[in-house]
Amino acid sequence: MAKELKDLTKRADNYSQWYNDLVVKADLAEQSAVRGCMVIKPYGYAIWEKMQQQLDRMFKETGHQNAYFPLLIPKSFLSREAEHVEGFAKECAVVTHHRLKNAPDGSGVLVDPDAKLEEELIIRPTSETIIWNTYRNWIHSYRDLPILVNQWANVMRWEMRTRMFLRTAEFLWQEGHTAHATREEAEAEAIKMINVYADFAEKYMGVPVVKGIKSANERFAGAIETYTIEAMMQDGKALQSGTSHFLGQNFAKAFDVQFVNKENKPEYVWATSWGVSTRLMGALIMTHSDDNGLVLPPHLAPIQVVIVPIYKNEEQRQEITKAVEPILSEMRARGISVKYDDADNRRPGFKFADYELKGVPVRLAIGARDLANGTVEIMRRDTLEKSEGHLEGITDHVAALLEEIQENIFHKALKQREDMTVKVDTYEEFKEALERGGFILAHWDGTPETEERIKEETKATIRCIPLDAPEEDGVDMLTGKPSHRRVIFARNY
Amino acid sequence: MAKELKDLTKRADNYSQWYNDLVVKADLAEQSAVRGCMVIKPYGYAIWEKMQQQLDRMFKETGHQNAYFPLLIPKSFLSREAEHVEGFAKECAVVTHHRLKNAPDGSGVLVDPDAKLEEELIIRPTSETIIWNTYRNWIHSYRDLPILVNQWANVMRWEMRTRMFLRTAEFLWQEGHTAHATREEAEAEAIKMINVYADFAEKYMGVPVVKGIKSANERFAGAIETYTIEAMMQDGKALQSGTSHFLGQNFAKAFDVQFVNKENKPEYVWATSWGVSTRLMGALIMTHSDDNGLVLPPHLAPIQVVIVPIYKNEEQRQEITKAVEPILSEMRARGISVKYDDADNRRPGFKFADYELKGVPVRLAIGARDLANGTVEIMRRDTLEKSEGHLEGITDHVAALLEEIQENIFHKALKQREDMTVKVDTYEEFKEALERGGFILAHWDGTPETEERIKEETKATIRCIPLDAPEEDGVDMLTGKPSHRRVIFARNY
Repeated sequence: MAKELKDLTKRADNYSQWYNDLVVKADLAEQSAVRGCMVIKPYGYAIWEKMQQQLDRMFKETGHQNAYFPLLIPKSFLSREAEHVEGFAKECAVVTHHRLKNAPDGSGVLVDPDAKLEEELIIRPTSETIIWNTYRNWIHSYRDLPILVNQWANVMRWEMRTRMFLRTAEFLWQEGHTAHATREEAEAEAIKMINVYADFAEKYMGVPVVKGIKSANERFAGAIETYTIEAMMQDGKALQSGTSHFLGQNFAKAFDVQFVNKENKPEYVWATSWGVSTRLMGALIMTHSDDNGLVLPPHLAPIQVVIVPIYKNEEQRQEITKAVEPILSEMRARGISVKYDDADNRRPGFKFADYELKGVPVRLAIGARDLANGTVEIMRRDTLEKSEGHLEGITDHVAALLEEIQENIFHKALKQREDMTVKVDTYEEFKEALERGGFILAHWDGTPETEERIKEETKATIRCIPLDAPEEDGVDMLTGKPSHRRVIFARNY
Repeated sequence: MAKELKDLTKRADNYSQWYNDLVVKADLAEQSAVRGCMVIKPYGYAIWEKMQQQLDRMFKETGHQNAYFPLLIPKSFLSREAEHVEGFAKECAVVTHHRLKNAPDGSGVLVDPDAKLEEELIIRPTSETIIWNTYRNWIHSYRDLPILVNQWANVMRWEMRTRMFLRTAEFLWQEGHTAHATREEAEAEAIKMINVYADFAEKYMGVPVVKGIKSANERFAGAIETYTIEAMMQDGKALQSGTSHFLGQNFAKAFDVQFVNKENKPEYVWATSWGVSTRLMGALIMTHSDDNGLVLPPHLAPIQVVIVPIYKNEEQRQEITKAVEPILSEMRARGISVKYDDADNRRPGFKFADYELKGVPVRLAIGARDLANGTVEIMRRDTLEKSEGHLEGITDHVAALLEEIQENIFHKALKQREDMTVKVDTYEEFKEALERGGFILAHWDGTPETEERIKEETKATIRCIPLDAPEEDGVDMLTGKPSHRRVIFARNY
C-alpha cells in the first residue's frame, strides 16, 4: 500500500492522471473488458450505496415511490418525441437478435440470423418514452394524479470518450418520472427535486453547488426547462451533478396521455423527470481528495473511524483489544461505523497509508503507553492533523469531530469555489480568466448562436443561469447586445 | 375496487388465471410494451424492496460485500465454458450496433449500419463470465482469497413463454460470486448460502422450502453441484425459489484465474455463485393468497396495519383522528408500518375490499361507538376473522398479532405441503399422484436418461434430492435399478 500511495500522481503534476490513479488505487472502480464500461469495486460501491440510501430516504420523504420499467425500449418509441430522439440516437446500444448458435467450425458461437427481432430494441439511455407509454394506461382522471415515481436503474449511452464515474457507457442512476394535472404543479416538482439534490450534495457529499437553469443548448432533449446543480472541482472545472427537467406536455403528447380534469375536459398531462448518477462519485472524489488519496465526507464514508492498535507482542495486542471492545460497542450504538484493524500481516505504517488513501475520516491509534495513560492518538483525514485525546469520552469526541470534518470539507470547497469565481465584462478578460479556471460570471445575450461561438472558440459553455442571479443590466461581452443578468461560464467535465 | 375484487378469478376455477388477475389487480406488476418484460408497479416494488433489504442484511452478516459488473458481456466470453454457453446461448439478447440515424424518408430512425460492433455484446443472462474475467486481475495469492461479492442487477433471458414474476425476459435478482482457495471452503459457502435462502424464505416470506441437490439435468450450466430450495404452490406445483452453485474450478480454468497457495504453488481458484430473483414474488403470491386477494407475510408487507375510521360526519372524523394519532406514533415507534386511511372519496367497504386485495395483514376499524367504548374492530387478513379489541394496549396486541399471522401462514403452507407430499413405489402410483399434484417421493436410478423419459411422459421432473433424505434401499420405479434414497418429483413452474 505504501508503494501504491507513492505511485499516486500529484494533483499539481497532472490532475486528470491523479483522478484516474485515485479511482483505481483506492479500490473504487476499474475498467472492464467491455469498452467504456467500468467495474464498481466493493469499496466504491459501498459509497454509492450510502448515497443511494440517503437519496432514497429523501425521495420517499417527498412522497415518491419506487418502481421498475423495462431495460429495453422499442426503437419506434424513441422517435415519438422529435428532440428526444435527436439527443439520444447517436449513442444507442441496439439489440437486434435474441439467440446465438454454435459456429459450424466449432470455434465458438455466432449470432443466429434466424433470431432477428422484428423491431430493434434500444438499451434505455433514459426512460421517458417507455414510462410515458406505460402512464397512458395509468392515468384517466385528475384523481389518478399526481404520479410520483422513481426508478433505480442502469442506463447506457454509447459515449466515445469515457472516464470512470464521470462518463461511462453504462452507468447507474435514479430517474424520477412524475405526472401532474397542472403546469404549476409540475414546475414546482421540478424545482423541489433540484432543491433535494442541492441539499444532498451540500449536506451529505459536502459539495457546494450552484442551482440554476440550463441554456437551450445544454437543456435535456425533450425538456421545456432543465434545472441543474453545478459543482466546481479543484481544477476549476465545472461538474454537472444533477438535473431536474420540466417536460411540459411534450411526452404526454408524444404518447397520447390525457386525463379528464375537474371540469370534465380532456387535457394532456404535465411531466417532470430528474436524475443523479454514479457521476456523483466523480464529484465526491474530485472535490475533497488530496495527494494522499481520498477524503470522504463522514456522512457517506463506509468506514467513518478506524482504530489501529500499536503493539509489540501478542500480550499487548490482547490488552489493547480488551480496552477497545467497549469503545467499539459504544460507537456502534451511536451509529458510528467503526473498524478495528488488528490484522497481523500489515504493519501500522502500511495501515495508516492505506486508510488515508481510502479517505477514512478519523483514525485512532492506541499503543501500550496510551493504554497506561488513558490516551489515544487521533488523526483527522481532512487536515491530516494529529492530536492526543482521552480514551474516556472518546465516542463523544469522535462524534463531534466527524461533524466538524463534514462541515470543514464543505466550507473548504465553498471557499475554493468563491476564490475561483470571477466577474468579467470583456471577451479578453473572459479568455484570460478561463486560463486560470473556475466559474466566470458574464453577461450573455441569451442566444444559442453566441453560446455556440464561445464554445467553439474557448471550449467554455454556460453551466447555468443561477436561480439566485441578481438582476443587473449589462451587455453581452461578444455581441454587445443587452443582458439582464450574469450567467456562469466554465469549462466542464 | 369492489368491482375489481369481484372480477378476481377463483383459484378453484382457474388457478393460473387467478394468479395473473391477482398480479394485475393488486397493482403488483403489468405487461409492458416489450415482449416478455414486465413493469413492476410501486406496490409490487415495495414488497421487492423489503425482500432486498432483508436479504442484503443477511448477505452482509455472512461477510459479503456488494459490487457492480457490466451489463454487457463480449460474445466470446460465453463460449469459454462449454456447458455454460450451451445452457444460455439460445436465449441471449444480442447488441450488434451502437448508433441510430434518421431514416432518409423522415419516418423515424434506423440502425446505422456504419455503427456495427466488431464483437457482438450479450446482455448478461448471468455474470459468471464477466466476473471471472475480472477476478483474474484481483487474485494473485491465497491472501487475496476469499472474495465474497454480491451484485444486485437486472439480467435477461429471452424466454419464449413468459409469466409475470415467474418467468420474464428481464428480471431483477442478486447474484453472489465467491472465490476460494480450497474446494472445501467453496462447498461450505455454497451450502451456507442455500441455508441463508431457506431461512429467508421460511422466516420472512413464510414459505416452507425443501433444501436439496439438483439432478444433472436440472443443474446450472457450468456447475459441479447445484443446491436448491423448492417450494410448493397451492396448486401442488413446485417452484424453484433459489439456487446456490458449487462451480468447482470450471470458471477459473475457463478464465485462467490462478493463485499461489500457501505452499507457493499455482492453483486454480474454487468458485460458487448463488441467486434469487423477482421470481420470489411469484412464490410469495402463490403460497399464501386466496380468492379475496393477496395475503402478505407481516415481515415483508409494505403496510402491516391499516386503520380505517368509520364516521358519519366531519366532527366524528376529527374525533377519531385525534384518538388514532397517538396510536400511529406508538406503532411507528415500535417499527410497525401503519397507514391511517381517512380519505373521504372512498367508502369504508371499498377500503376494506382494497386492503384485503392488497394483503395488508391487519385492519383496524374505529367508529364513534368504538371510541366511546374504547374498542376497535380487528380483522386479520390470513383468516379473515374479525374480533373486538381494546384501544388501550392496541399496539402490543397488534405487534403480537403480526407475529402470530407470520407464524400461522407459514404453518398453513407447511401443512399443505405435508398433505400434498406422498411416497410412491410404482410408476402407476406415480402417474396417479401426479394428477392430484404435489411432491412425490420416489426412488430413482440416478441416470439422466430415466429422468428425461419420466419428464417426456409425465411433464414431471426431479425437483431435488433433499439434503435430509434418509437412506432407504429401493428400486427405480421405471427401470427397477437400485436406489438408495427417494428424490422429489413434481411438475413445476
